[in-house]
Amino acid sequence: MTSTPPPARPHKMRRTTVADQIKNLILTNGLRSGDALPTEAELCATLDVSRSSVREAIRNLSTLDIVDVRHGHGTFVSGMSLAPMVEVLVFRGALSPGDSLQALREVVEIRRALDLSMSERVVQANHGVESPELDALVADMEERAQRGESFLEADRAFHAMLLDSTGNRLAGQLVAAFWDVHTAVIPQLGLPVPAEILKTVTAHGDMLAAARAGDAESYRRAVVEHYEPLQRVLDEHR
Amino acid sequence: MTSTPPPARPHKMRRTTVADQIKNLILTNGLRSGDALPTEAELCATLDVSRSSVREAIRNLSTLDIVDVRHGHGTFVSGMSLAPMVEVLVFRGALSPGDSLQALREVVEIRRALDLSMSERVVQANHGVESPELDALVADMEERAQRGESFLEADRAFHAMLLDSTGNRLAGQLVAAFWDVHTAVIPQLGLPVPAEILKTVTAHGDMLAAARAGDAESYRRAVVEHYEPLQRVLDEHR
Repeated sequence: MTSTPPPARPHKMRRTTVADQIKNLILTNGLRSGDALPTEAELCATLDVSRSSVREAIRNLSTLDIVDVRHGHGTFVSGMSLAPMVEVLVFRGALSPGDSLQALREVVEIRRALDLSMSERVVQANHGVESPELDALVADMEERAQRGESFLEADRAFHAMLLDSTGNRLAGQLVAAFWDVHTAVIPQLGLPVPAEILKTVTAHGDMLAAARAGDAESYRRAVVEHYEPLQRVLDEHR
Repeated sequence: MTSTPPPARPHKMRRTTVADQIKNLILTNGLRSGDALPTEAELCATLDVSRSSVREAIRNLSTLDIVDVRHGHGTFVSGMSLAPMVEVLVFRGALSPGDSLQALREVVEIRRALDLSMSERVVQANHGVESPELDALVADMEERAQRGESFLEADRAFHAMLLDSTGNRLAGQLVAAFWDVHTAVIPQLGLPVPAEILKTVTAHGDMLAAARAGDAESYRRAVVEHYEPLQRVLDEHR
């Protein structure tokens, strides 16, 4: 099989060659998340480039969360989160007043689609499994909702942990990233918190119970119910 | 309803305050993708910060594809692609030799999950609709595969265009982004092209035909068949 050239690589990979060299050095040195990079002076010598080029490349990699600069301690290989994507999507949601509701609808649709499409895996991973942490998160959301408080952190942790249980780390991160986007965009748009927020809380408990019972069909029904109050708010502001 | 503090914003939003100010200025000035930003000198004056701070902030926003620096022409609001996320995920896939196959499996699982979960929307959008561009892409993939050539660009365009047809721009971008990650990681891992690559080509045609016929069930079957050759390669290298 002959090969045609691969499609264009992400734009920054073409331009920031020193950043590419540093990425290669991370790979060839077998560095892992949390490991220290060589010092700035060592990088200048190894890559034979100026100190300002190294600094710019490190800043670039830091913005992408590929390295983590801890001032006074050095530069480390980072956890490579999806934080840069969240920042871009949050800003995109805020950018176009006419389109930002549409942008939010798209994010919510993707969240729902991911939750639905991972249902078999979530049920498989949780069938018959005790998970006191997930129970505690559901209880925390219920208590807060009944006191009329919001429950953002428990909500985010619940979704991320449930998806993480499938062993697909990327799924958990994506779900958490879209949760961040959605939660940051709603107040920017001045949207009300759905009136039936308690339904969403109950749906979290139903999702967990269905997963434990090994019932994928009920799990998917609970996912659909979970998003209904939010979708109604989005529809009312169409 | 009292409010608890929102969860931590993406890490860069806390640190790069000049970048935040520039993002706010984009919003308050009502700038859109493609619009020019004020000049560096104007930004220094408006934000009352040094030229080097403005430059660093612009570089940061450029890395995130929020602005686009065209040398000699100025700085423009960018298309806000998912290119930064692709760069991070491709590097993450390459980073840990032991885990990179697992990282690839996760990406392929997410691609498949997105395709499956958007099936109703894709079918709804394409039922009874002529789309000569999609036909041409399928024909192009078939011809190339029969000549033993790869067909990466047509493949990517096919998936992105099909998801775009739902009107969910984010879904199309995500699918294209994960396609990029997956395609960049496979050669890095030295994985063979699936032997039954022609099955994948046929499955593209089947997906399109099912969507046009309004048959969501057949569409999902074609999606499953589409990923089978690739999943077999991933399983063999377990």
